[in-house]
Amino acid sequence: MNKKVTAALPLRDIQLDDRYWNRYTKLIPDVVIPYQWRVLNDRIPDVPPSYCIRNLRIAAGEEQGERQGTVFLDTDVAKWLEAVAYSLSWRPDSVLEKTADEVISLIGRAQCDDGYLNTYYTLVEPDRRWQNLTAGHELYCAGHFMEAAAAYFETTGKSELLDIVCRLGDLLCQTFGPESGQNHGYPGHPEVELALVKLYRATGHERYMELARYFVNTRGKSPNYFIDELAWPDYRNIYPEFQPYDPAYSQSHMPVRQQETVEGHAVRAVYLYCAMADIAGIDADGELLERCKILWSNMVDKRMYITGGIGSSGFLERFTADYDLPNDTCYAETCASIGLAQFGLRMSRLTRDASYMDVVERALYNTVRAGISLEGDRYFYVNPLEVWPDICMEHTSRAHVKPVRQKWFDVACCPTNIARTFTSFGSYIYSAGEDELFVNLFVQNTATIQMNDKQVKINLKTDYPRSGNISLVVEGGGAEFALYIRIPAFAENFCVCIDGEKDIGTAENGYYRIYRQWNNEQIGVSFLIRPRIVYSNPLVRANVGKVALIRGPEVYCFEEADNRDDLAAIYLDPNTELMEIWDDSLLGGTMCICCQGYRLSPWSTDKAFDIVQSYQKQPVSLTAIPYGSWNNRSPGEMIVWVHSTI
Amino acid sequence: MNKKVTAALPLRDIQLDDRYWNRYTKLIPDVVIPYQWRVLNDRIPDVPPSYCIRNLRIAAGEEQGERQGTVFLDTDVAKWLEAVAYSLSWRPDSVLEKTADEVISLIGRAQCDDGYLNTYYTLVEPDRRWQNLTAGHELYCAGHFMEAAAAYFETTGKSELLDIVCRLGDLLCQTFGPESGQNHGYPGHPEVELALVKLYRATGHERYMELARYFVNTRGKSPNYFIDELAWPDYRNIYPEFQPYDPAYSQSHMPVRQQETVEGHAVRAVYLYCAMADIAGIDADGELLERCKILWSNMVDKRMYITGGIGSSGFLERFTADYDLPNDTCYAETCASIGLAQFGLRMSRLTRDASYMDVVERALYNTVRAGISLEGDRYFYVNPLEVWPDICMEHTSRAHVKPVRQKWFDVACCPTNIARTFTSFGSYIYSAGEDELFVNLFVQNTATIQMNDKQVKINLKTDYPRSGNISLVVEGGGAEFALYIRIPAFAENFCVCIDGEKDIGTAENGYYRIYRQWNNEQIGVSFLIRPRIVYSNPLVRANVGKVALIRGPEVYCFEEADNRDDLAAIYLDPNTELMEIWDDSLLGGTMCICCQGYRLSPWSTDKAFDIVQSYQKQPVSLTAIPYGSWNNRSPGEMIVWVHSTI
Repeated sequence: MNKKVTAALPLRDIQLDDRYWNRYTKLIPDVVIPYQWRVLNDRIPDVPPSYCIRNLRIAAGEEQGERQGTVFLDTDVAKWLEAVAYSLSWRPDSVLEKTADEVISLIGRAQCDDGYLNTYYTLVEPDRRWQNLTAGHELYCAGHFMEAAAAYFETTGKSELLDIVCRLGDLLCQTFGPESGQNHGYPGHPEVELALVKLYRATGHERYMELARYFVNTRGKSPNYFIDELAWPDYRNIYPEFQPYDPAYSQSHMPVRQQETVEGHAVRAVYLYCAMADIAGIDADGELLERCKILWSNMVDKRMYITGGIGSSGFLERFTADYDLPNDTCYAETCASIGLAQFGLRMSRLTRDASYMDVVERALYNTVRAGISLEGDRYFYVNPLEVWPDICMEHTSRAHVKPVRQKWFDVACCPTNIARTFTSFGSYIYSAGEDELFVNLFVQNTATIQMNDKQVKINLKTDYPRSGNISLVVEGGGAEFALYIRIPAFAENFCVCIDGEKDIGTAENGYYRIYRQWNNEQIGVSFLIRPRIVYSNPLVRANVGKVALIRGPEVYCFEEADNRDDLAAIYLDPNTELMEIWDDSLLGGTMCICCQGYRLSPWSTDKAFDIVQSYQKQPVSLTAIPYGSWNNRSPGEMIVWVHSTI
Repeated sequence: MNKKVTAALPLRDIQLDDRYWNRYTKLIPDVVIPYQWRVLNDRIPDVPPSYCIRNLRIAAGEEQGERQGTVFLDTDVAKWLEAVAYSLSWRPDSVLEKTADEVISLIGRAQCDDGYLNTYYTLVEPDRRWQNLTAGHELYCAGHFMEAAAAYFETTGKSELLDIVCRLGDLLCQTFGPESGQNHGYPGHPEVELALVKLYRATGHERYMELARYFVNTRGKSPNYFIDELAWPDYRNIYPEFQPYDPAYSQSHMPVRQQETVEGHAVRAVYLYCAMADIAGIDADGELLERCKILWSNMVDKRMYITGGIGSSGFLERFTADYDLPNDTCYAETCASIGLAQFGLRMSRLTRDASYMDVVERALYNTVRAGISLEGDRYFYVNPLEVWPDICMEHTSRAHVKPVRQKWFDVACCPTNIARTFTSFGSYIYSAGEDELFVNLFVQNTATIQMNDKQVKINLKTDYPRSGNISLVVEGGGAEFALYIRIPAFAENFCVCIDGEKDIGTAENGYYRIYRQWNNEQIGVSFLIRPRIVYSNPLVRANVGKVALIRGPEVYCFEEADNRDDLAAIYLDPNTELMEIWDDSLLGGTMCICCQGYRLSPWSTDKAFDIVQSYQKQPVSLTAIPYGSWNNRSPGEMIVWVHSTI
């Protein structure tokens, strides 16, 4: 913890123009934000009402009626506002900004005089504030409002929403803490911790940072706050299915500084870890950083899917045990992979270790991208690695797995989370320190950076991940600093040229480092991206003897549209030749992987098992497409891990 | 439907003395019935109170307190009484009979004046009788009392319980039916239908038969009774997790005579099908018989595990879709396999087709036997085909799968169901018609049968399934009839000798038929029983490329105790030599299957997936034991279907 934590560049200083990501960076402002605005206002005829804006109007006293929807519904508005804020930073839109200003004004009118802000408790249970930290989600909602406010303030400089959340934050600081007379609880769903850090950064008020520390350090101390709360005689149980309550569900089974494994609800977990990483950085808290590393390793080595999905159990959307990674019954929530990316990005900035960005890239290119349709108006909440639509049946153990993306959800955390992630996508590309600039993701863009009082302009050109060819022009104006270029774990033959001459530089923690005075150098980076076979640790019961295909950062899958159904009966020879074929007309232009494989021959009986039949393999031509693009054609089967002939 | 339906022999006329089954036939009266009696009376310190007898006492006004436990708790007492009745028929026990008489007397005192009998509704919701057919289980409870009464009357000739249930049955006949003023509903959990048939057979009263027909034929008609009931403004929801209610859950999604596939809760389904088969036989209703055959085929060909387990979804304990047979998340409830055996036995008696008994035998020797420990005091409710104890975690999608047998359950339908099944085990062996006697199961016994006014004595000797050698001595006293000996589907080299001479008889529907005058012939039956590889239809996604081992009626499994852990990484060459080794000291004496196989070598990294590692197979010696005997040593992993080297 010698060096300061590196930081993102302001989004306004990065202009993205990337062949692979343009779809999303255009889609979000053009389609997704307007679509979601209509959903929030209950204006899409075949989507059930979300009640989001309506609830705020009722809380503001401007509409009559009953407050409806889940207790944490306000967060959908908050995350939409946050997405708008990021979007406005690189694509100004006065009409959209006016709409956002009006929503912010509405939120202000829905706020109570003492700063309290939450439509559910204000309207439905006004006497029960802070009496259900286990499941009431008041602090979770507060956190999302704070994140939106910090983003909107940074983009627009307007302080109305920031003032609103500061009043809310001040109420939290009065209400929660170690003093007698204060509430000694902490959030049932972590989120406000990382938001309080953002609020601290936006305002400089140490009290918000102090509350974030308090929440993180108090969590899991004995006696368990939630268990005590649940025993209160007048406790009102919102989610009976959580009973009997398992403190690990909310990572409160022990103090966070003692936890060795990632446990419980995956989104809760990664949001908590983000705050732990933030605090570790700000406080130079080596113990907390070490804990973050331990939890990270357990998660990504033993409890993460190849797609960057986390959360193996459909019930309670949670982590289970090491190597328990079922493909067809998992949760792998979109929001959890977003939180994983946020945590990994923080860790990369704390440690200057590129391996974190390998995981961040894995999550963004695969599960997060799979969470939204290519048209932007359909979403996955759950991201399985194997889908057999016939058995994704309501009223069964697999009811949580949907074989097609949905227009919206009763619990709709994912769609607005995707929107805020893709509108802030630029923030994942660079990390800047005092005399360091890290290039984390290979996304075509131009960026300007103040580096040692000099303005540096970076022009990054690439068709990644179609190829591993990246050109960086650094107009440094004489600034002297180290440029770090991430060497992806999958990269073969990684090499760097400076102004056409091969450079013999050094690699540091997975980054290629070039320290020099920068004037107008052109850096050429190239590495081989080709289809590769990935094997699964035999300890992963669900994948014994199976292989998956990757190409660069992308995990591939086989879809029924290309390979007919019954994909589970496919076998691949790990030594088979994998051909890559660019198809400009497919899925908006995509690289396919084609190969020869086998399929078990159909039986001549319809019996499920038999003593007389046996297994015959017949050759078959197979085509795989990127997992992030799956389910954009006719619904059907999909599979990532297929059997290998071993 | 030309011939009359064949019938069971009275249990009292069969004396079992079978090396394989003696354990259970001794265990049930010696251990299980006394153990369960103590549980019913809340007398086992480390088993939470069942409240069963206590509830009856409270209903009888003989104890103060609050009625506790599930709504259908009375059935545990009823099934225990039914087990006692069967046990007394072949093992008289005056002390046990006195206890049973006292329980019966208590039941009588708990009965309302109008015949109503149900401790839950009598004590907790007296004003809500018959207002929750969806989930209240009143008719289900009534059915189990009727089954117990019919059994106790047949064994003891005592009519007290029969009188009680006739008063109850008469109340049902008044209450339910097509007339105006009658309730037009039917049971949310089928069971009373088959029980009413038993009551009809015990009493000869046609009204009970008529009500059984009414319930079966009304089920699933439009508009759906349960959907209507759930919409009643004062409906009290006992099981919120069933909402929104899926009529297929209770097989009420369409009239039973239109159903093509087995749907919904597996126990509900097979109990319903039993009644359909009963009615088909009594009424010579060919349409209903045809429907039973269609449902049977769908179930056993496409929705049944090799172990005779049914119910693929843990949530709602239900059927899902064809070929959806996950090994580690299934339900495969013990009660469901008992109901499957009951249905198959009825079908075999209706059709004289031995293939039904292949399935009955599969269920009894495997899942039902697995449902109880060799010591008799631990039970499985859920019977998975693959267990990894680490992930059988509470608060996850796999919480229903227990890695070890339990002492009792909050919903404890299975333990007493096993008790009544094994005490009535003799009834599965023979089926008798006018001039026909069918030998269905190869269990050592002596039996006496009235055949054309002559007393026939059968002495069946065998060590089956250790071998396929069966000796039958038929002391027929000159009676002329056809003896049918089942030819198991797995039997190789099936041959029959009569008095030492090879017989060239005929096979009919899977039975070997010998028609003659019987005096004192000795029939020698022999067929080869050897370990065999079973393949899985490639349509079963969970088992692609996997094989299982069987030997005769027994499915085998690999346990951690013999093969160390990580059993999922095992591979078998389908051509490997399978050796059978009798181990007298293991699990009370058992045949093991030993073979050479492979195991994927452990990786040198703990990462869940990797591009550098690959798959190496190392040879390993493997030992399999019968699935019915699993989990009787130290807890650990178990697997039925293992990968094959193909």
